[in-house]
Amino acid sequence: MIDSHTEPAYSPTERSRVKRLHQRGHYDKKTVHAILDSAVLCHVGYVIDGQPFVTPTCYWRKDEHIYWHGSAASRMLRAQADGIPVCLTVSHIDGLVMARSAFHHSINYRSAMVFGKAQIVTDIAHKREALHDFVERIAKGRSAEIRTPNDQELKATSVMMMEIEEASAKVRTGGPVDDEEDYALPVWAGVIPLKFAAERPIPDDRMAANTAWPNHLDSWKPGSAVDQSFLKLAADQ
Amino acid sequence: MIDSHTEPAYSPTERSRVKRLHQRGHYDKKTVHAILDSAVLCHVGYVIDGQPFVTPTCYWRKDEHIYWHGSAASRMLRAQADGIPVCLTVSHIDGLVMARSAFHHSINYRSAMVFGKAQIVTDIAHKREALHDFVERIAKGRSAEIRTPNDQELKATSVMMMEIEEASAKVRTGGPVDDEEDYALPVWAGVIPLKFAAERPIPDDRMAANTAWPNHLDSWKPGSAVDQSFLKLAADQ
Repeated sequence: MIDSHTEPAYSPTERSRVKRLHQRGHYDKKTVHAILDSAVLCHVGYVIDGQPFVTPTCYWRKDEHIYWHGSAASRMLRAQADGIPVCLTVSHIDGLVMARSAFHHSINYRSAMVFGKAQIVTDIAHKREALHDFVERIAKGRSAEIRTPNDQELKATSVMMMEIEEASAKVRTGGPVDDEEDYALPVWAGVIPLKFAAERPIPDDRMAANTAWPNHLDSWKPGSAVDQSFLKLAADQ
Repeated sequence: MIDSHTEPAYSPTERSRVKRLHQRGHYDKKTVHAILDSAVLCHVGYVIDGQPFVTPTCYWRKDEHIYWHGSAASRMLRAQADGIPVCLTVSHIDGLVMARSAFHHSINYRSAMVFGKAQIVTDIAHKREALHDFVERIAKGRSAEIRTPNDQELKATSVMMMEIEEASAKVRTGGPVDDEEDYALPVWAGVIPLKFAAERPIPDDRMAANTAWPNHLDSWKPGSAVDQSFLKLAADQ
């Protein structure tokens, strides 16, 4: 028996349930995790004195926790260290959907919205491990090549984490869906697919002469889809 | 005399001033507008009962106003219609910056953070004009081809707008900047550029037989940079 209820899933409440176009909503962990694992930049929302802030920042997931980091002097991270509620959103745009009516124009996208409470990672071993994971997330094996953080750098860096309390995904795919009577109109309709891709790496001018081309650059072959590369890197971790 | 203070600029307060890596901060309208005009999706942050929400949504700018829209039944838009404070953020990722030390890894990006108070557009002529602008933003000339919104569709759509009260941009470009003593390390360093580009349009299966290829698809030639196409379309409006 195929029963989607047997798949691990988040339990939506009023806060996270997809209300508009609810058929586009997903709560299973597989869908939410795949959207999260396919990107490096999220938009994290938090409130200071009633004022919302939305800060773009790099993040990474480990099981049911999301991590992000920044300067220990950051206003954002100092505010979040107090365990305030956070909404963290990740979005991919996959195409422009051109319909025969203005009303049915749309975009194809995949987004995940995650709710939780931010906390600061104080344990040094945990902090080192999290930053190691972040490097590996972008370039598998690179941690063994580079200079790892010294004590001063570790101190200057705040690592935040958040357990996923609730999450939802929203996905649109496919072509335009027009009103039946509009299909007869002689209007070009369809999808303009958009792709976020890597380009040829640009080596730094000051590279040491004896530097080898590292295998991890193979994750970022020119023309490769960024979301797919990140997803594969996450699966390999 | 060249004086950057003569350029039109936003006046940052505590809320919008770029604090971390402040040399990456920009407040001139030209920089902020260019970042806003180069994208179609923003992340809009708002607060309901103390809980932050970050919703990805399409938006467009007209002079000092940002517009976005959605279903009249949307929880987000109903909350925002009350004139609540909003933070609207737009981000472009341009590359992964690989340094010789973990600490100096970075990303190249352009982001703009805009603060204001959302309001609902109630005037019907204004609403029609805003939705017209949105279509033209994606496909110049398309409004004349498609079926425009009928009264029922207009009623089902809420258009929001926000005057830009404050805004700041943050931009990183270029290669890694390592600690001087790390340059001798035999570590591959450089930038992996990332590009968001259009791909070949996919015509809808049910296109009417007498449909012409519209000129506005030239804005989205396969391989063309999405940010540049949007920026050019905005300049042409």
